[in-house]
Amino acid sequence: MNYKKNLVTLRRELHQIPEMGWGEFKTTAKIISILDNLGWKVYTGLQQVGIERVMGRNIEFVEKSIKRARESGVSEEILERIQGYTGCIAEFDTGREGPVTALRFDIDCVGVEETDSPEHLPNKENFRSCHPEAMHSCGHDGHTSVGLNVAQWVIENKEQLKGTIKLIFQPAEEGVRGGAAQAASGLLDNVNYLLGAHLAMMCPTGEVCLYPTGLLSTTKLDVRLKGAPAHPTMSPHLGRNALACACTTVSELLGMARHGKGLGCINVGLMQAGECRNVIPVHATIQMEVRGETDEINNFMVEQACRIVKGTALAYDVAYEIEKVGEGGELRNDPELAQLVGEIAKDVPSCDHVVERKKIGCSEDFTLLASRVRAHGGKTEFFVVGADRTAAHHQREFDFDEKGMETAFDIFTGCLLKLNKK
Amino acid sequence: MNYKKNLVTLRRELHQIPEMGWGEFKTTAKIISILDNLGWKVYTGLQQVGIERVMGRNIEFVEKSIKRARESGVSEEILERIQGYTGCIAEFDTGREGPVTALRFDIDCVGVEETDSPEHLPNKENFRSCHPEAMHSCGHDGHTSVGLNVAQWVIENKEQLKGTIKLIFQPAEEGVRGGAAQAASGLLDNVNYLLGAHLAMMCPTGEVCLYPTGLLSTTKLDVRLKGAPAHPTMSPHLGRNALACACTTVSELLGMARHGKGLGCINVGLMQAGECRNVIPVHATIQMEVRGETDEINNFMVEQACRIVKGTALAYDVAYEIEKVGEGGELRNDPELAQLVGEIAKDVPSCDHVVERKKIGCSEDFTLLASRVRAHGGKTEFFVVGADRTAAHHQREFDFDEKGMETAFDIFTGCLLKLNKK
Amino acid sequence: MNYKKNLVTLRRELHQIPEMGWGEFKTTAKIISILDNLGWKVYTGLQQVGIERVMGRNIEFVEKSIKRARESGVSEEILERIQGYTGCIAEFDTGREGPVTALRFDIDCVGVEETDSPEHLPNKENFRSCHPEAMHSCGHDGHTSVGLNVAQWVIENKEQLKGTIKLIFQPAEEGVRGGAAQAASGLLDNVNYLLGAHLAMMCPTGEVCLYPTGLLSTTKLDVRLKGAPAHPTMSPHLGRNALACACTTVSELLGMARHGKGLGCINVGLMQAGECRNVIPVHATIQMEVRGETDEINNFMVEQACRIVKGTALAYDVAYEIEKVGEGGELRNDPELAQLVGEIAKDVPSCDHVVERKKIGCSEDFTLLASRVRAHGGKTEFFVVGADRTAAHHQREFDFDEKGMETAFDIFTGCLLKLNKK
Amino acid sequence: MNYKKNLVTLRRELHQIPEMGWGEFKTTAKIISILDNLGWKVYTGLQQVGIERVMGRNIEFVEKSIKRARESGVSEEILERIQGYTGCIAEFDTGREGPVTALRFDIDCVGVEETDSPEHLPNKENFRSCHPEAMHSCGHDGHTSVGLNVAQWVIENKEQLKGTIKLIFQPAEEGVRGGAAQAASGLLDNVNYLLGAHLAMMCPTGEVCLYPTGLLSTTKLDVRLKGAPAHPTMSPHLGRNALACACTTVSELLGMARHGKGLGCINVGLMQAGECRNVIPVHATIQMEVRGETDEINNFMVEQACRIVKGTALAYDVAYEIEKVGEGGELRNDPELAQLVGEIAKDVPSCDHVVERKKIGCSEDFTLLASRVRAHGGKTEFFVVGADRTAAHHQREFDFDEKGMETAFDIFTGCLLKLNKK
Repeated sequence: MNYKKNLVTLRRELHQIPEMGWGEFKTTAKIISILDNLGWKVYTGLQQVGIERVMGRNIEFVEKSIKRARESGVSEEILERIQGYTGCIAEFDTGREGPVTALRFDIDCVGVEETDSPEHLPNKENFRSCHPEAMHSCGHDGHTSVGLNVAQWVIENKEQLKGTIKLIFQPAEEGVRGGAAQAASGLLDNVNYLLGAHLAMMCPTGEVCLYPTGLLSTTKLDVRLKGAPAHPTMSPHLGRNALACACTTVSELLGMARHGKGLGCINVGLMQAGECRNVIPVHATIQMEVRGETDEINNFMVEQACRIVKGTALAYDVAYEIEKVGEGGELRNDPELAQLVGEIAKDVPSCDHVVERKKIGCSEDFTLLASRVRAHGGKTEFFVVGADRTAAHHQREFDFDEKGMETAFDIFTGCLLKLNKK
Repeated sequence: MNYKKNLVTLRRELHQIPEMGWGEFKTTAKIISILDNLGWKVYTGLQQVGIERVMGRNIEFVEKSIKRARESGVSEEILERIQGYTGCIAEFDTGREGPVTALRFDIDCVGVEETDSPEHLPNKENFRSCHPEAMHSCGHDGHTSVGLNVAQWVIENKEQLKGTIKLIFQPAEEGVRGGAAQAASGLLDNVNYLLGAHLAMMCPTGEVCLYPTGLLSTTKLDVRLKGAPAHPTMSPHLGRNALACACTTVSELLGMARHGKGLGCINVGLMQAGECRNVIPVHATIQMEVRGETDEINNFMVEQACRIVKGTALAYDVAYEIEKVGEGGELRNDPELAQLVGEIAKDVPSCDHVVERKKIGCSEDFTLLASRVRAHGGKTEFFVVGADRTAAHHQREFDFDEKGMETAFDIFTGCLLKLNKK
Repeated sequence: MNYKKNLVTLRRELHQIPEMGWGEFKTTAKIISILDNLGWKVYTGLQQVGIERVMGRNIEFVEKSIKRARESGVSEEILERIQGYTGCIAEFDTGREGPVTALRFDIDCVGVEETDSPEHLPNKENFRSCHPEAMHSCGHDGHTSVGLNVAQWVIENKEQLKGTIKLIFQPAEEGVRGGAAQAASGLLDNVNYLLGAHLAMMCPTGEVCLYPTGLLSTTKLDVRLKGAPAHPTMSPHLGRNALACACTTVSELLGMARHGKGLGCINVGLMQAGECRNVIPVHATIQMEVRGETDEINNFMVEQACRIVKGTALAYDVAYEIEKVGEGGELRNDPELAQLVGEIAKDVPSCDHVVERKKIGCSEDFTLLASRVRAHGGKTEFFVVGADRTAAHHQREFDFDEKGMETAFDIFTGCLLKLNKK
Repeated sequence: MNYKKNLVTLRRELHQIPEMGWGEFKTTAKIISILDNLGWKVYTGLQQVGIERVMGRNIEFVEKSIKRARESGVSEEILERIQGYTGCIAEFDTGREGPVTALRFDIDCVGVEETDSPEHLPNKENFRSCHPEAMHSCGHDGHTSVGLNVAQWVIENKEQLKGTIKLIFQPAEEGVRGGAAQAASGLLDNVNYLLGAHLAMMCPTGEVCLYPTGLLSTTKLDVRLKGAPAHPTMSPHLGRNALACACTTVSELLGMARHGKGLGCINVGLMQAGECRNVIPVHATIQMEVRGETDEINNFMVEQACRIVKGTALAYDVAYEIEKVGEGGELRNDPELAQLVGEIAKDVPSCDHVVERKKIGCSEDFTLLASRVRAHGGKTEFFVVGADRTAAHHQREFDFDEKGMETAFDIFTGCLLKLNKK
């Protein structure tokens, strides 16, 4: 197999069918079908998620996505296997005793419309997104392609390997939603080594970073308030003002105590409140996130946020609901495993140099998969594989140097050859 | 002409084509065509509005409404006369010297979906609204029908009359938007007597109220804020948070000083702010209204509101815009004219009794037409003509006793016979 | 007895020893001693207050006031009778069956420094306040003088009277604190007629007003918050910020819902919060009041205020205490009794004219005494006796036309002659 | 001279006369008198401060302090030299060409009452504070003693030295107030080396720390608001509510944007607002501080704070004043000079070990003296000299191991022997 070529081909196919978190039905169907053909055991649907830990999954959106998948030819049989829960976990048992090594690839896209600039490679080379308002502008198409090529490589090299290999195709990484659910599936509990990577970020083509820093622990919360309507001049005393409550809540949230041990952040990114100008507002919705340099700090922020919502709702006599719709923890790489990745990377042809630390400053729910593995005695490592970008991640002009996929592929397979060498 | 029957027929025709403020193209076309046929001089389009005082007119909505009117057969010729500005003012000069008497009828509807209950008369008698999400649930279909019947009556009785009669068919009364514009047309500046009425409200069939009270002076404001985006953890110092600004603004608005001389009210009915969870919010929109027992109090509230928006925008370093989208003044009836209406009402067969005062507690931009007339030395009177209701105004189950239209018609024509008797 | 002269003499003596609420030891001692001498039965100390309803009584201030009274010669014997609780209720039983009629006079002063302007009568005539920062600038010296002269008149005219007369010398009317306590004593429960009056207000000399309006129901609340200290940069997460909580609470209080049935007001007049610049603030105190056109509205405001304090304290995780330190109800005069006062007033030489209604716009805890009496079947009336003022009440330049005292005296004694005539 | 003994003696004398910032008249008089006797040229009063940069100096407090100094025997002559501005800068010119080396010692105390625990050394050894509510609980008595002993040592060792030595006895370090003023005197502009140290902090006896970290840039601000009074029910529209403005301002301040480049902090430590319960509040005062990991961040916080105060004052139509009452910058030590201190420390008998970095987490206005020196080409170093503590700094039980003074003395004189060796 010409992996170099196949990495690009597959990535470009996936780039055309970008699907947002929990709606990756076409993508999951494609992944399952490839893995099936290669002979992997594939856990799908409810087998691969802990349903009680599914977050940020909008039923309407899921149904629309299924409809679109069906219309574009995804078979009922595969849709039934998916059971409405996208992503999958594939397993290959070499039959030989040995460690369980898992690799994680995230598969969802971002909700932006891809640029129509003729300079943009997907336009030039004709693999632009076919879905309106959705685009692989974070490189997960690349991640998925790497994962599927590794799947093929494992089969082709199975005679050199021992132990078990698991490939985690994670849905809904954007908004840090899917990681908790797959961790809760229990399918990672016997994993000895868990590896994951992100393409591009702050690293140029040829660079590999072993300890990305500034990766913040985070929790995403939706708050819904419900009051009671009233005419604002004739019977204001009968109203319960959800908009006013939401506004005070936001002021309190932004001013909440920070933590002496490190960075704690809060953002309220969205508010919708009220029905019309001359009625005491009944409904309000807030979308917010907190972050912390550590899990401890993030939890401190979450507790404060919840207490603020609860107390302020009481002050305004409105009902409230808080829904956790996303979550990512702090990143703690295992030094031994990081060193291994560093050594392998140095021998990879497309890798110029390895850096220890570089600040990225976002959040990742790989951390939740990693926590689960560590809790059961495994080791984990998350690294960044450089790739030049044409724009920042999540921008509609984003594209990455496809060469980065080679680097990632070579490191992942290199690790398997080390960790699971027969 | 059988006015009694025609009042009902016409009202039911109008009830089927409800159009919201500034979108009354089908309604205006119908009115113009009837008035043309009767021989009234009709001022249309920009002739009948002061364009600089047009408020709360959404261009997109206007264009959709024109399209619908065209599609349902309104002629290009009439659409051209309307010039995009609905409503009209009709004039009949008897040729004999005498006072100028104006009657005002508002023509727009409310944005609610009409009930499908089989008990609802328009369903029973098959004159339900043909327009989705629009319904004459405030009785302006009745007002318009009364106006058009009066138009016919004037022509039929012109030999008994002297002076000039004006009929004001006002657009966009809901949200108190159209009155200011028609007042600014100047067409009312020579009016000696201005009369207006509302059907139903707090009065049952057979009752006429000469001085409705609790009718508040009001101003409707839209506030738009614009900040700057930024990543909330990597570069929060580059953001300018429009959502946070809006929230503080609302808290300040609700807590603004009241007035020692009487009731002052404020409601913020709607807020939309922010783009997504993990970006410092850039845009925020607030829809609010203030009201006052008098114009002085209302103005005091408006000044405070504007100062709060301005100062808070400065505090948060965001840009702001304040748009006045509606306005109504305090109601001041002329005692002489009120007495006249009372005397005439007592002789009207469908009127049981006349009350002096009754609290209604809403706002009306008839007051702006009236201010203009009073400023030029005229006298004005706004009264309520009772009609039993099946539900409160603006409810989807609203209907009124059509008998009320007779009462209104008899009072208006009675006034003309008094004021403009040859 | 020359009442006309004695009214002035006594008022001027009292004017020199102004004492603020719950500190009226010299004043109470003087009253008791006069009443003793006249032969009234005098209820003092804990006999005349329901201790569980004593509000706004500051122990330190009480102790200072006792010390001053003792130093200026008030006997230990009288101080013991007062038991630390100022005011008294005097009773005179004629021995003849008949109604119980009570008259109420408030005795406390205001915390302002009397002007040193030579134009000011107390300076001219040498009866200026001897107490720093305290002054009878609300006319209660006049009220007390009237009460004591009535006491003398009753004794001198006892042969013309039947039934029982009660004179209520109320402490702490400022801040509406003492009324509730005396009402709770139970000593008014057998009262058939309760009368009270205020001098001056909006009425000039010679005018009597039977139904003062705009007298608002009110509740005075003190709020105390307690958080936890912390270093603001090293351990902000350990702090619980009482100052921040207080600020948000105030914003919410000022923006609380108003009532559709009438005027509701809120003022936060004082806040003290925090210890020093670089510690998370631990303590905060708020002094506030709400008012309502009716008891219902006032109670609505109180409930909201308490809920806001409670909820916001929860949001900030600080402890809170709410203390009711003052209370006054809505005024409801008995029409029959008001008419009687009106008739008597018309015959009083110093009274020019009687008006039905005049807006005053403050609060009075006479209303609580009145509620208690009404609850037991009695009738009550509170009126205003005009007297020209040199400045508004509570101003340091305030003085009133002493002729008003004659009018009041004549009306009160006139009522006794009607209601309790043998 | 037995410096070891004299360090203790002098420190204990100073400990008994603790004086808070800008009130150090007895302390300054003592310092001047010692320096005079030794033959130093002493710059006093306005010679040693840039008056336009004097911050946080309360005139009333200064006058009380002068009075106390005079009463305890400070001569008029010295008080005249001090001119109301405490602290001094001493200069010794060896007469030989060479560098100008300055050492800085802060002399003020903290406003806490010293513990009366018999375990507390100053109680045991009888050198407790003689001033109520003032105590050297931050070790500046030790700093001053070290400085005065160094002054003696310089004279005794002048033959070994070249160049010029300056000793800066800085007033008002608490609240970071005095540094800016002495920097602005210009007396440091020719300094080649500036050294300063703090005793104790996070370092035990025997430890020296060369780069204390977490020392934050800071600005202390007082905000004063002035509105207009009004009766809250009769004329609220005439009021301008300073308390409400202050509360909103605080909420905005606490929620202000943080900085992506590092830690930014805000604390509002104190608020006083309003006059009494039933008047719209006229006055409000806020005491606050912002801090930043760097000057850039601190300035960003200051700019935001000022804009928030200004905008919110506009929103509430109240007047505002912002006064900067304290300021400290970021700490930037010169690596060469730090290394020198490290090398010398290693040879000091009382020093066990030298650490590079240790987090302290407060602010220091040594940084402003240092900025001034660096701006003129000099080098600067601020280090911590360990000393065991009995309680945290600023606690009433605070005491430090006096052995630390030896270490500091030996390092300072060691530096002079290196930098200014003949």
